[in-house]
Amino acid sequence: MTAVLDRDRFFDPDPAVRRVARELYDETRRLPIVSPHSHVDPQILARDEPFPEPAALIVQPDHYILRLLYACGVPLEALGAPRRDGAPVETDPCKVWQRFADHYYLFRGTPTGAWLDYELHEVFGVGDRLSGETGPRIYDVITEKLASPEFRPRALFERFGIEVLATTDTASDRLEHHRAIRESGWKGRVIPCLRPDAVFQIAAPGWPAELEALGREHGAPLVDYAEFLHALEDRRTFFKRMGATATDHAVLEPYTTWLPPNEMEVLYQRARQGDVTPADERRFTGHLLMEMARLSLEDGLVMQIHAGALRDHNRPLFERFGPDRGGDIPVATEFTRNLRPLLNAYGNDPRFTLVAFTLDESTYSRELAPLAGHYPAMRLGPPWWFHDSMEGMRRFRERTTETAGIYKTAGFNDDTRAFCSIPARHDLARRVDANFLAGLVARHVIDTSDARRMARALAYDLAKETYKL
Amino acid sequence: MTAVLDRDRFFDPDPAVRRVARELYDETRRLPIVSPHSHVDPQILARDEPFPEPAALIVQPDHYILRLLYACGVPLEALGAPRRDGAPVETDPCKVWQRFADHYYLFRGTPTGAWLDYELHEVFGVGDRLSGETGPRIYDVITEKLASPEFRPRALFERFGIEVLATTDTASDRLEHHRAIRESGWKGRVIPCLRPDAVFQIAAPGWPAELEALGREHGAPLVDYAEFLHALEDRRTFFKRMGATATDHAVLEPYTTWLPPNEMEVLYQRARQGDVTPADERRFTGHLLMEMARLSLEDGLVMQIHAGALRDHNRPLFERFGPDRGGDIPVATEFTRNLRPLLNAYGNDPRFTLVAFTLDESTYSRELAPLAGHYPAMRLGPPWWFHDSMEGMRRFRERTTETAGIYKTAGFNDDTRAFCSIPARHDLARRVDANFLAGLVARHVIDTSDARRMARALAYDLAKETYKL
Amino acid sequence: MTAVLDRDRFFDPDPAVRRVARELYDETRRLPIVSPHSHVDPQILARDEPFPEPAALIVQPDHYILRLLYACGVPLEALGAPRRDGAPVETDPCKVWQRFADHYYLFRGTPTGAWLDYELHEVFGVGDRLSGETGPRIYDVITEKLASPEFRPRALFERFGIEVLATTDTASDRLEHHRAIRESGWKGRVIPCLRPDAVFQIAAPGWPAELEALGREHGAPLVDYAEFLHALEDRRTFFKRMGATATDHAVLEPYTTWLPPNEMEVLYQRARQGDVTPADERRFTGHLLMEMARLSLEDGLVMQIHAGALRDHNRPLFERFGPDRGGDIPVATEFTRNLRPLLNAYGNDPRFTLVAFTLDESTYSRELAPLAGHYPAMRLGPPWWFHDSMEGMRRFRERTTETAGIYKTAGFNDDTRAFCSIPARHDLARRVDANFLAGLVARHVIDTSDARRMARALAYDLAKETYKL
Repeated sequence: MTAVLDRDRFFDPDPAVRRVARELYDETRRLPIVSPHSHVDPQILARDEPFPEPAALIVQPDHYILRLLYACGVPLEALGAPRRDGAPVETDPCKVWQRFADHYYLFRGTPTGAWLDYELHEVFGVGDRLSGETGPRIYDVITEKLASPEFRPRALFERFGIEVLATTDTASDRLEHHRAIRESGWKGRVIPCLRPDAVFQIAAPGWPAELEALGREHGAPLVDYAEFLHALEDRRTFFKRMGATATDHAVLEPYTTWLPPNEMEVLYQRARQGDVTPADERRFTGHLLMEMARLSLEDGLVMQIHAGALRDHNRPLFERFGPDRGGDIPVATEFTRNLRPLLNAYGNDPRFTLVAFTLDESTYSRELAPLAGHYPAMRLGPPWWFHDSMEGMRRFRERTTETAGIYKTAGFNDDTRAFCSIPARHDLARRVDANFLAGLVARHVIDTSDARRMARALAYDLAKETYKL
Repeated sequence: MTAVLDRDRFFDPDPAVRRVARELYDETRRLPIVSPHSHVDPQILARDEPFPEPAALIVQPDHYILRLLYACGVPLEALGAPRRDGAPVETDPCKVWQRFADHYYLFRGTPTGAWLDYELHEVFGVGDRLSGETGPRIYDVITEKLASPEFRPRALFERFGIEVLATTDTASDRLEHHRAIRESGWKGRVIPCLRPDAVFQIAAPGWPAELEALGREHGAPLVDYAEFLHALEDRRTFFKRMGATATDHAVLEPYTTWLPPNEMEVLYQRARQGDVTPADERRFTGHLLMEMARLSLEDGLVMQIHAGALRDHNRPLFERFGPDRGGDIPVATEFTRNLRPLLNAYGNDPRFTLVAFTLDESTYSRELAPLAGHYPAMRLGPPWWFHDSMEGMRRFRERTTETAGIYKTAGFNDDTRAFCSIPARHDLARRVDANFLAGLVARHVIDTSDARRMARALAYDLAKETYKL
Repeated sequence: MTAVLDRDRFFDPDPAVRRVARELYDETRRLPIVSPHSHVDPQILARDEPFPEPAALIVQPDHYILRLLYACGVPLEALGAPRRDGAPVETDPCKVWQRFADHYYLFRGTPTGAWLDYELHEVFGVGDRLSGETGPRIYDVITEKLASPEFRPRALFERFGIEVLATTDTASDRLEHHRAIRESGWKGRVIPCLRPDAVFQIAAPGWPAELEALGREHGAPLVDYAEFLHALEDRRTFFKRMGATATDHAVLEPYTTWLPPNEMEVLYQRARQGDVTPADERRFTGHLLMEMARLSLEDGLVMQIHAGALRDHNRPLFERFGPDRGGDIPVATEFTRNLRPLLNAYGNDPRFTLVAFTLDESTYSRELAPLAGHYPAMRLGPPWWFHDSMEGMRRFRERTTETAGIYKTAGFNDDTRAFCSIPARHDLARRVDANFLAGLVARHVIDTSDARRMARALAYDLAKETYKL
């Protein structure tokens, strides 16, 4: 049995840095986990049933894993991803797991590999490294653990030290799982987050159905733009009552603009007739983001904007398997001009908080840090998705700290669907931030007492404060 | 009393690197300061009166400080920034200073923090770190020093070891302070730099006034484009006679183009009637940059282009407080195509020097280093503004040296309004460059004798040579 | 006599990293060289005649050297670059060499300097560093060596341990030198690579001549688009029969699109009449890239796309000296949207391999690694041209490995015209990759056994596998 995880992992080898990194990390490692942005299905915690076997728990829902296996020649069918046309796919979870194990070497040097090593070792107590050879045995070990009460979702939630977990929910969601959790008497804090993207996308084929669902929840037909906006306002109120402290908006570009009221009504009515273009949608969304910011001032919900992913880039794969299979690809993203209307309108208001995320790292030092280093309302979200990694986090800190300081950043988000990977992701972030600060200490940019306060802020305080938790 | 400044600050902790960095820095630390690009007000040195108290000296004129305090929730009014509408703002400098001291932790890890630590410790002999607690005492120490003759501007100029200091002056400036300095018998070399931006911006509301001021200095009404250009030529001659060796041009994009002469005349006449668009201004400026380069060949003034800042992004703040309060935000910038007309026309001429600056670091390795590594006339300005920092300088060297070498870079610019921060900024640059070279030595890319010559070039020779000082 | 090359060059000074880097490098340093993408003239190996003297061998054909000497004020005439107008240029190779030696300090810290140090020391056994002083002696040493049989091209090919060398050849090339090599009985494997750019560029002045040359080789007049495409298909077959395993396509932007068949015919006929614009060429090329991918599926030739160089930026220099004198400058490049049609059509097909190269490093983490980390057909080419350097390779690995792993990268390309620099370039790459992996080991991201397998993959296996060699 080999120890997979070194206690000094992700720390610089230089002794002066490593010693300080270790000290800083030792002070943050046991802080509670604040998770203001996840994609965990609340039903898991509402029902608190045992997790399924390892392939369904770890491999199949994780688009980080699916994408790289697929890129290296493993068909999604062989991993049991269901096809939209109902054609047969692999149904034996042991075979799916074994294919993953056989190709596990592909993940060496990736954050997915680091998270999985942690998950296997720390969460499931597996001593061996995953490989084709050890795959079956590890499958059995995990399966056995999953059957025990200590591995039920709520037990893990407590063991992970999660202080609060925010899910991501559509505008028409009734939040029944959240209600069930609250009514269950269990003390775990699980809160929703309103992500109304689907009703913003007026040019998408699914928009009419989304609109109808929103109207159903709203309790009145959304006959005009005013009523539509009113419905969104109502949903914000409802989500807030259910514990939400934030909204989230995923956009291809962070374009914001004020349209004249009649133009919004015209666009809305044309959308209802199915007569809109992507350019129309861009304008419609640009205006709605302004409305969302305006409402944030009133209800205090923190506004998140995730910009720059071109979704479903791989059209044939999307048609066969649907979304979230690894086919989303970033594009160059512009913030300075796009956010100007929104920031000019609300960015100077202390009641407003905007957290911006990017997949275009060239904007860190050029646009985002200067904006966050000036507008009181603006914060920088942590490195997102492809950049939620050791090197990605290092680049983020190196390129934003000098202009915006650390206090205009928003702490860490795990942003994950994979519940059992939550502690792994926070652990990696805490280690990398400790190491970053240790590097500053070793170069005498900050001193140790500064570093200790900053490490705690990055690991815990900033997330809590930014998201009003 | 705690020592704030470690002798090895900003050096890599690796002993092999640190040892060499220290050696290289020890050879450059006492070299005279060549400051070819500053924003120091020449009146300070013309009058040589005592500086005001600490808040007015250090806090209020520094947009790096104002921006981050403002971003973190301190209203500009509370820092005593005058409002355009004359509404009351804080008038007690001790309170302004205290607010700064209370929030000084925000600057940890920023270059502003590093410069201030140096300024307090090395310039004013303050032993404590600035904080809410030490703020009042430090205020008193500085105030006392400022009253002594050793802290008069000219005495500091000499103590700082400034060999030459270039200011930045508008086209219609009579350079009376420069004249006063020259006629005073004092030996300090303070030279002007011609920055005619305001008369290029034909779509700006202030253009008619700027044009009138230029005409007044020129001594003839600027009735047509030919006369306008002639006035610019005359101002170049005048500035040169007053010691200038360079011009400076700040543009949103470094667009250059030859327009037909009649188009310039048409644009000029439309501008005089207030009938021009930003697109017109772009073309007008694009052509004027070509003319400036052409004149540089004749009069030998070095041409600087600073591209990529979207000025006054925060419109409401600008309306309340005016420019230079921290509301300028960079945008993505294109050099390869934009500079092509200018470089094709003059870039092969050994009489011409163009120094280019960017706020878009993605252009370092992609566009700027390849251009400077090919065109004889082109030099790379040092990392500018948001990138004038430890990590910013490291990225600049790592991304430009391999393609353009160090000999096509222009040495260091402090680019500062804050006179007392000049030695701090040069010290940081010399340390970071020494450390960069030490890293190359430790990896056996260059040897120590190379490194010593290169360190001196970066600290002194290149600025002098590039700017013909 | 000074040793120029340190055994630990390019390795991090940290002892923990350096020790592992040395171990990893020791295992890869003697692996054969696989060179799937070079610009070596096959005639050199077909004739196997002695190389000319040092200036003609080392200085004059190397645009990396010419560009920086020119940028620092050395006229190309003084380096003996022939002028198109036949005006006199330097003809004394000793003087050319001496000018190079006098300016050799300009290359300190550049990859050209590193390659040359290796070439002088390891290939030619020169003990001294090149300088103005040592220049003449080193000239004589090299001249003498070049006269000996051990320094004939084929002898060097074998001494360098080249397993396979791919050249780059136009569509109308008869590959007579390749045929001569094969028929000579010599065992060295030298294969062609089809680069049909010239016949894609319908708006270029030279297109009619290129088309005629292609028609001549094809054996039939290319009267319509169908016949033109047929000719390209035939050339692919011919190149493959002559050993080619790949095609190469240099484009300003990697735009791909399906045009209706009649539009291609219309464009083709308009091109034959000289009536096309750059926009037409863009569409024509965008469609042809799709056709090339389609044909790759059938014949198995690996498709390379090199995007983002604006060729002949310096028009006056181009007019005086022609192409490849250092005047090519990169531009920002977009891959996500541009490659979408091609990847949607063929990127999921396991028979297809696309290797993409960029000069825009901001696309590494934003576009290229996500694409390669998803599409089975896509691989990332190594850092190209300006980025084929110590820091450039480090940035490439740091920004692509976490998203795409190392197994979706294509190994190393030397991409050189300079035959004698081939081992220097592979040595640098092997060292930098060993050092990168050692950094991961020292931070416990991977273990030593992983690192050993990965080092071998990067140095040898991946190039062989990607290019089907």
